[in-house]
Order: sequence, then C-alpha cells, then structure tokens
Amino acid sequence: MVILGFDPGLATLGYGVISVDKKGRAEMIDYGIVSTPKDLNLPARLTMIEKGVEQIIDTFHPDEIAIEELFFAKNVKTGIAVAHARGVTLLTAVKKCGKIFEYTPLQIKQALTGYGRAEKNQIQQMVKTFLKLKAIPKPDDAADALAVALTHAQTNKLGGLFSI
Amino acid sequence: MVILGFDPGLATLGYGVISVDKKGRAEMIDYGIVSTPKDLNLPARLTMIEKGVEQIIDTFHPDEIAIEELFFAKNVKTGIAVAHARGVTLLTAVKKCGKIFEYTPLQIKQALTGYGRAEKNQIQQMVKTFLKLKAIPKPDDAADALAVALTHAQTNKLGGLFSI
Repeated sequence: MVILGFDPGLATLGYGVISVDKKGRAEMIDYGIVSTPKDLNLPARLTMIEKGVEQIIDTFHPDEIAIEELFFAKNVKTGIAVAHARGVTLLTAVKKCGKIFEYTPLQIKQALTGYGRAEKNQIQQMVKTFLKLKAIPKPDDAADALAVALTHAQTNKLGGLFSI
Repeated sequence: MVILGFDPGLATLGYGVISVDKKGRAEMIDYGIVSTPKDLNLPARLTMIEKGVEQIIDTFHPDEIAIEELFFAKNVKTGIAVAHARGVTLLTAVKKCGKIFEYTPLQIKQALTGYGRAEKNQIQQMVKTFLKLKAIPKPDDAADALAVALTHAQTNKLGGLFSI
C-alpha cells in the first residue's frame, strides 16, 4: 500500500510518500515540498498548492492520504493562512483519492515515539529509523509529512508496531 | 457589470449578486447561502463548498468577485474552520473568474456607512437602502455578502458614492 502524508502549509507544504507491506514494513518512496512565493497574492498561491498536490498524487498514485490536523496556532495570522492552504489540500486530495485521514500532532507523537510530548527532533529521528534513512529528511516540512504517513501506516495496523 | 460577493464560511457561505451600471447604480440580482451539515467530515463539506461556488458562478457569470478578508477570529477554532472554506472559495473563484478582490471588515464598514466602527445592523440597513429592498436580506450571511459586493462596486468608482 502506498501512503502519502501531508504537512499542510501555505509557504511550504511538505509531502512524504511511503509504501507499507503486509507485515507493516515501511519504505520511503519520496519526499519533498511545494513552496509558494510570499509576494504572490493568496488566490495565486492557493492555485499553486492545488497544482502541486495534483502533481504529487498523479505521480505516486497513493492508496490513502494522511494529513496533519490544525487545531490551533500560536500565531493566529499564520494559522489562518495555513488553514486556507489546508482547505485546498484537503479538497484536491479528496477529489483525487477519496481516502483521507487526519491526525493530530498528539497522535503523530504517540504513534512514532509512544510519548505525547516528544520533541520535534525525536519524531524526526524515528522517521529516519523507521524508514532506514541515512539522514533526517530535509526540510522539516518533508520530515513531518513522512511522520504523518508513518502514523497512518501504524494506525492501520490497529496499534501494532513498525518492523524495523 | 455583475459583481458577486462572498461572506466566507464553512457551515454557511453567504453570496450576493448585484449589477452596477456606469453611473454606479446598484441593483440586486440574487442572494443566498451554501450550507454544509456539521455531521459531515471536513473534506466532504469542502467539496460541497466548491460545488456551490461553481454553481453560483456558472449561474450568474460575474465579471468580478469580492470576498471578505479573514484577519483574525475571536474563536480560533472557528477561524481555522472558516479559513479552510475560504481557501476553497478563493481557489474555485479564481479558477472560474480570475478577478478576485478582498476587503477587510473595516473597509466594508467604511464603504457602506463611512464609519469604521459601524454596527452589523447599520451595514444591513445600508444594504437595504442602496439596493432599494423592502426588507433586510436574510440570513445575515447573505446580507453580508451583498455588503461585500457593494463595497467592491464603490471601490471601483474610486471612492464615489452610490446613487440611490
């Protein structure tokens, strides 16, 4: 099964693609970002997000898509901007794939480290370990997107652990 | 010129359509809402918003579209939800029409009443007056959408007044 994870954003949308076999072994297929320039207007940036999401889905044909939930933002202005982009990401994803799953930051931390207050770096280390990577994927948005994809893979296994 | 105004929302998206002649006289064409049930999941509700916006634009063929800006929200959770829907509304509008204009609540208040701290009811009274309506349009979301459309009509006139 191919799982596509999204770390939503307006300036930078992270994506991560993994395949998971029946034994729960996860393998990295690709990761990266869609970025939009700050000096473009919002409708144009949202159109870039849509095109980027379409292209990623058309390239990797995910069976299921996982996306991080946005509960609140410390900076409300940033939260509102991200939510615009997240709305477009969700819409485009559901039209292309239909199987969309949302995970809170807490669920992602618990799935990857078993600890709801894990630091960002601990999550990224687990992404590296689970996917047998030589280094932590960069930028952070891409690593976070792989973490969401891995969370979905684990949740699909009804709480089972990844095989390393 | 036909102007379509949107008051963005996830549960209720208001729309208002007006025509403005060369002398700046505005006439009401239609108004209404797109509503999405709270018990549906977010991707499904966003898809309903997209379809609704497409249908409105296909019906009224606006020359230009005006949409209220979302700067902040007293309730952050609600603000995030509205921003998801607003992102989808902007994306759909720009794909269908291309001419999108955003107005802050302050700009709308000033355009319609000349006073930045006007109450909601004062705005609605001005909508009724400018469009020569027998009553204030209901629900509020539709009246607000007409207010955005009127704001754009006035701004296009470079600060001129509406003819009543």
